Amino acid sequence: QVGEVYLVGAGPGDPELLTFKALRLMQQADVVLYDRLVSDEVLELCRRDADLIYVGKKRDQHAVPQQDINQLLIEHARAGRRVVRLKGGDPFIFGRGGEELEQLKAAGIPFQVVPGITAASACSTYGGIPLTHRNYAQSVKFVTGQLKNRTSDLNFAELVQPNQTIVFYMGLHTLEMLVTGLLEQGKPQDTPIAIVAQGTSPQQRVLTGTLADIVQKQAQAQLPAPAIIIVGEVVALQPQLAWFGESALDAETQRTED
Amino acid sequence: QVGEVYLVGAGPGDPELLTFKALRLMQQADVVLYDRLVSDEVLELCRRDADLIYVGKKRDQHAVPQQDINQLLIEHARAGRRVVRLKGGDPFIFGRGGEELEQLKAAGIPFQVVPGITAASACSTYGGIPLTHRNYAQSVKFVTGQLKNRTSDLNFAELVQPNQTIVFYMGLHTLEMLVTGLLEQGKPQDTPIAIVAQGTSPQQRVLTGTLADIVQKQAQAQLPAPAIIIVGEVVALQPQLAWFGESALDAETQRTED
Repeated sequence: QVGEVYLVGAGPGDPELLTFKALRLMQQADVVLYDRLVSDEVLELCRRDADLIYVGKKRDQHAVPQQDINQLLIEHARAGRRVVRLKGGDPFIFGRGGEELEQLKAAGIPFQVVPGITAASACSTYGGIPLTHRNYAQSVKFVTGQLKNRTSDLNFAELVQPNQTIVFYMGLHTLEMLVTGLLEQGKPQDTPIAIVAQGTSPQQRVLTGTLADIVQKQAQAQLPAPAIIIVGEVVALQPQLAWFGESALDAETQRTED
Repeated sequence: QVGEVYLVGAGPGDPELLTFKALRLMQQADVVLYDRLVSDEVLELCRRDADLIYVGKKRDQHAVPQQDINQLLIEHARAGRRVVRLKGGDPFIFGRGGEELEQLKAAGIPFQVVPGITAASACSTYGGIPLTHRNYAQSVKFVTGQLKNRTSDLNFAELVQPNQTIVFYMGLHTLEMLVTGLLEQGKPQDTPIAIVAQGTSPQQRVLTGTLADIVQKQAQAQLPAPAIIIVGEVVALQPQLAWFGESALDAETQRTED
């Protein structure tokens, strides 16, 4: 009898931000294939006797090629096992979940999908930056900052429209290109921008600035990946709404000094 | 001693899609202020002796005006209570979370924010529609379909760009205006579009079509709110990737008939 594959979003890393359904399926799984962005704390919640298989990718350096991951999922399911495919964040937002399911479908393997808290939600709530706000942004767009062909991949003319928030995933190493692209298309120099690094973890750090100064600020601060970048007027609310970790302390200090 | 406000995302309705942190804070709260989109099943997980206060809004008909909600949050916290402000989905994505926190901050009330599974994630995973996909969409945009000034609120020229997925929240009652706006700006007639109604619930229904025929299809099908609308090439994957509820059965029937 063929097994089943559960494509599960593991959220941002804090195990308290897992859903109940994610945990239930993790505890049923015989085999768990997991990515680099799945935290150790989350992995520890898998069944003690489950096989944990790391298939994580690093940028420009695939630990396990995608087609081999697909093949592993199919083989384990065909062997009758319950397989959890565990991905950081949400599997359908920059998670390549669709690609993996297409292969499972073609192979006749049944599957279910569990949404997870995507990085944009996690980092904005823990960073104190609403993604939409009646006065500042009536829409929000998630874009990958991982550029294959430098900036030619992105339609910056479309990204500079006002009254929207832009969230770049995986854009820390291309920050300068992203900022240059926005400025060249006429986005104002004083547009607020934030980097939220290691969001929701005790190591979370938030760096805020403007398109004019964020590259220099990050060169000094050296916030590490994983990080998301938030661009738009909503970022100006951050000093007021920060409540978690170091950024809240910074904001408190600023207010005391004012 | 002043209490604290927890602004908590309740996710799409299925209590299994709550996070552990959301449930923990719900079970600590003395008072819970909740919206229309919070399901009964989720509410039942609050403490038995907690005060549950409905502050839900209907479209064009505010059950409790926003400033009264703000005032309630402040009063209960000042009385030393632990208050959960429970919102469907994610509080920072079309949830007005930012507006409420600004008032709490001004009143000196401490707060925390818990992200929730937003409708776009929930409905796309349970509907079988990846929001991003390497071959079809490198970005995804969330837009409100709730138009104050008819279509003039939306920049349709920007929404018709290729290679992106658009998700309209609260757009079911403006479907025809949204479709007309996209077509007038040159979005192709055969662009795939889906309505996911009551996503993740046993009553979930998915209606797929194209910009040319979706208005007529919905006039016949009469899918009810709450619903989200997904526009883009990724919708073409739905018959293949549907796995939950009626839409999976439909897809199965179609394949059998083919």
